[in-house]
Amino acid sequence: MMLSDPSLKYRHFSTVDLPDRQWPSKVQRQAPTWCSVDMRDGNQALIEPMNAERKRRFFELLVKTGFKEIEVGFPAASQTDFDYVRELIEGNKIPPDVTIQVMTQARTHLIERTFEALKGAPRAIVHVYNATAPVFRDVVFGVDKAGCIKIATDATREIKALMQQYPQTEWTFQYSPETFCFTELDFGLEICEAVAAQFEPTPQNKMILNLPTTVEVSTANVFADQIEWFCRHFSRLDSVIISVHPHNDRGTGVATAEQACLAGAQRIEGTLFGNGERTGNVDILTLAMNLYTSGISPRLDFSDIVHVQREVEYCNQLPTHPRHPYAGELVFTAFSGSHQDAIKKGFAARNARPEGFWEVPYLPIDPADMGRSYEAVIRVNSQSGKGGVAYLLEQYGIVLPRRLQMEFSGLVQQVADDTGREITSEMILECFTEQYLTEGMPYRLGKPQVVSEGDTTYIDARLDGPQGLVHLAGEGNGPLAAMVDALAACGINLDIADYHEHATRDGAQSEAIAYVEIRLGSQFIFGAARDGSFLSASLKALVSAVNRATRSGLLGSLKTSASARIHH
Amino acid sequence: MMLSDPSLKYRHFSTVDLPDRQWPSKVQRQAPTWCSVDMRDGNQALIEPMNAERKRRFFELLVKTGFKEIEVGFPAASQTDFDYVRELIEGNKIPPDVTIQVMTQARTHLIERTFEALKGAPRAIVHVYNATAPVFRDVVFGVDKAGCIKIATDATREIKALMQQYPQTEWTFQYSPETFCFTELDFGLEICEAVAAQFEPTPQNKMILNLPTTVEVSTANVFADQIEWFCRHFSRLDSVIISVHPHNDRGTGVATAEQACLAGAQRIEGTLFGNGERTGNVDILTLAMNLYTSGISPRLDFSDIVHVQREVEYCNQLPTHPRHPYAGELVFTAFSGSHQDAIKKGFAARNARPEGFWEVPYLPIDPADMGRSYEAVIRVNSQSGKGGVAYLLEQYGIVLPRRLQMEFSGLVQQVADDTGREITSEMILECFTEQYLTEGMPYRLGKPQVVSEGDTTYIDARLDGPQGLVHLAGEGNGPLAAMVDALAACGINLDIADYHEHATRDGAQSEAIAYVEIRLGSQFIFGAARDGSFLSASLKALVSAVNRATRSGLLGSLKTSASARIHH
Repeated sequence: MMLSDPSLKYRHFSTVDLPDRQWPSKVQRQAPTWCSVDMRDGNQALIEPMNAERKRRFFELLVKTGFKEIEVGFPAASQTDFDYVRELIEGNKIPPDVTIQVMTQARTHLIERTFEALKGAPRAIVHVYNATAPVFRDVVFGVDKAGCIKIATDATREIKALMQQYPQTEWTFQYSPETFCFTELDFGLEICEAVAAQFEPTPQNKMILNLPTTVEVSTANVFADQIEWFCRHFSRLDSVIISVHPHNDRGTGVATAEQACLAGAQRIEGTLFGNGERTGNVDILTLAMNLYTSGISPRLDFSDIVHVQREVEYCNQLPTHPRHPYAGELVFTAFSGSHQDAIKKGFAARNARPEGFWEVPYLPIDPADMGRSYEAVIRVNSQSGKGGVAYLLEQYGIVLPRRLQMEFSGLVQQVADDTGREITSEMILECFTEQYLTEGMPYRLGKPQVVSEGDTTYIDARLDGPQGLVHLAGEGNGPLAAMVDALAACGINLDIADYHEHATRDGAQSEAIAYVEIRLGSQFIFGAARDGSFLSASLKALVSAVNRATRSGLLGSLKTSASARIHH
Repeated sequence: MMLSDPSLKYRHFSTVDLPDRQWPSKVQRQAPTWCSVDMRDGNQALIEPMNAERKRRFFELLVKTGFKEIEVGFPAASQTDFDYVRELIEGNKIPPDVTIQVMTQARTHLIERTFEALKGAPRAIVHVYNATAPVFRDVVFGVDKAGCIKIATDATREIKALMQQYPQTEWTFQYSPETFCFTELDFGLEICEAVAAQFEPTPQNKMILNLPTTVEVSTANVFADQIEWFCRHFSRLDSVIISVHPHNDRGTGVATAEQACLAGAQRIEGTLFGNGERTGNVDILTLAMNLYTSGISPRLDFSDIVHVQREVEYCNQLPTHPRHPYAGELVFTAFSGSHQDAIKKGFAARNARPEGFWEVPYLPIDPADMGRSYEAVIRVNSQSGKGGVAYLLEQYGIVLPRRLQMEFSGLVQQVADDTGREITSEMILECFTEQYLTEGMPYRLGKPQVVSEGDTTYIDARLDGPQGLVHLAGEGNGPLAAMVDALAACGINLDIADYHEHATRDGAQSEAIAYVEIRLGSQFIFGAARDGSFLSASLKALVSAVNRATRSGLLGSLKTSASARIHH
């Protein structure tokens, strides 16, 4: 239950007294250093952590996209991560311009295990952290400020010693005061000073100070104030790289990262599409494309955004929202007539002067830059319709399998293109009915006799078609297999590629709808049918597929000379 | 293809010369006026526009949530919207503390039609707009600055006259210079001055000036500068309400709204969960909860966020991302052991001192405030697992129907609770196999004989169970109906509530998996089975449901005295 006066339960966040702040007058002129933490969060924040194969694919994607710093995991905390780091190093899989980063808690045995994982690495960033905010000191760890600093400096000393022990690796040290954004600002400074005093970075051998919004608690401008304040006060600014690691609990991760850069941050940790605990980390795709559309090279390549999205979805097993900036399926789409009209005029003007600045109304970026097409913008109601077509049919109780969605959306698009009209749900149902559910073109299945005994099903059926009534008989391990056998006896050779069926209403007397995809050599085609019996529906769906294949010329005529076997 | 030097194609956005800006030192102390534009965008930005029923449900939801200003549509542009506005007015459906808003383009016939739609309304905001940015003046409308101003002032004059013509309605006038954020700042000011001079608002009779980021083109702080600059320069500030309408093309809609409020905006137009063209409008849910977690009452009630989310998803037919701030299914979830441990300690501390400020690590808000449970936080691998369980099973080719996902996730949760262990995909498959796929407890279906002739299917089957072999026979319009009939003859009365079936591999010889949900009075329970024949799978799935119902005491014993009818 929400409180009418939440001030009794929730404190207002602290602000920074910085009336002469400079960051709001600054302008970003170049991309920060990007560090992907996708693979760490691929273990920490997913329903099912990435396995080794998904990690491999994600690493490849990140390298291909242009990331030069990649946190590959938490090897001391996970055997999968440990093994994966070893595989990268021993398999020589780290490109010469890429540095891997690994995370460790500030504990001796975990630090030692981390260095074991890194043995033989050409370059590596060792990232150690401890939580610094009051609630963590008091409630979680039971340490005072001095104890909190000691955890950090002890770990720093150990790491420094281990780095000296393995000089063949080019090391970088990174420290994160976790929960920095709700740590007292002066204590956050104090612990970072203590860590830096222990590590002794130099302008030639910088360390990374990573200041996270572990949980977002303030507006983005307040975090930018914190960063500017920190940079003004930190004594060794020329010997450190200021990094931020924004989360998104308040939906302002992107703004936090952007404004932190104006305030002095030089490096951003985040993920593609914003995966990460809870609401996720900041989305580096959005940050990069925001720079790009401002004329600044992000030094990351999202020219084939569809591929990137597919890979990320595969590895994370999380969907992309249709309105996700720069990538969602609806973001290059205009539904309203006035928007479409303005976009058309914008494209016409651009075609007349293709070398000028991009200025097409309602399109902050040329979709072609990301491998998406102009078509997708203008032909809204057909092109954008794959999801839409499926939605609309579901209202009639028809739940298409995914590959059928794709097959069918192409047909709907043709209707949209041919008629130039807005596609209504009635039109979609009509199109589906005409294409899939209409029986008898050219073959109509009479009520077949199906007998299932033991492991074998026998079918005895009639097909009414251009050749008159044709008798079919076959057998198999089930009704569809028996029908495939019966069709083969008449010269129609096909395989079942996919089969789905569901009830369209409740109750045993309801209708079933069946979808059968057949394979004819390298061609695939679906059929569908409704019937009171799910058994009849599935057989009719197979005939529907045969009919569609016949109508489109993929199948020749039935051979009526075939001997009909009838089972009693 | 992305350009290596995007400055050739994309201009950097303009900044505002405002070194003495005040907004970054301001703190928000109360909620702005919220105006929902969900129902406008329900027509403009959805694959399938909302129908009247969805509009009704959304309006009710908005009223219940506490919105006092609701843009209900674009009545001059859509007959659905027109009819809906009439229904609201004639049906007296607008609560006394709620004002509806309607949008119109700046054209005489559309303005007149808009007032027709509003006849008899107790209160209404008439919202007129025209695009003011250079590319719209030059490319889309072909007008110069004076022409652009004339469009706005002509419309203002017409609207003012029509308002005077219908004095029984309490009118508010709203003007939006569409594309304000990339209009020359001084021209944006000039056109707003001209409109206000025409309308003549007073401090007692204010008009609304709505300044949209129609397409986001800059960082959030630059828009805040624009708003502060505008407020400093506008001559009748005491006679207007400054409103903003942020979009989210750069993923910074929330920050833009928040910082614009610091800069002088008093009102925000947005939507629940951020629906709207392309990347959507700013999400008012996030804005409201950001205030709430800062101790400020948003004057909106999201105590039952699950209900709100379901209603919005129903009306918009768009999903909520699992990481959506405050509402996504994963945002109150911690997967990593160290986070879970910290959260546990935080809850323990809070239980010891329940009246203090909310300070539970990694949880920016008490989930209970939004009707979500503590359980959902700690019992991660079971509670958060509904989606996860389904994902994991899909890797084994098992695609559960939605209601079965829910039934089964409860069972997985029990395993998680009982074992206290991380749930692996193997454990889930084992649990599913044990609960659904294991045959013979207490009944095992022998290979049935099924004969389908004409419209009737006959079944002749044996059930092996505690009573020995029981003979069953029945008939129906399909195999499941026949089996239900056969079971009824033995005293087991049930209905089929749902049925799904799909192939688990390609090819006619593949296995099918069937899911059958049965209804026993008010109880529902699923069964499932795999078989080489989809026919056998479906019958076995029905028996699986009977077995599960029997084991859980929902069904008594089979009556072996029933006469067995056998069909030859």
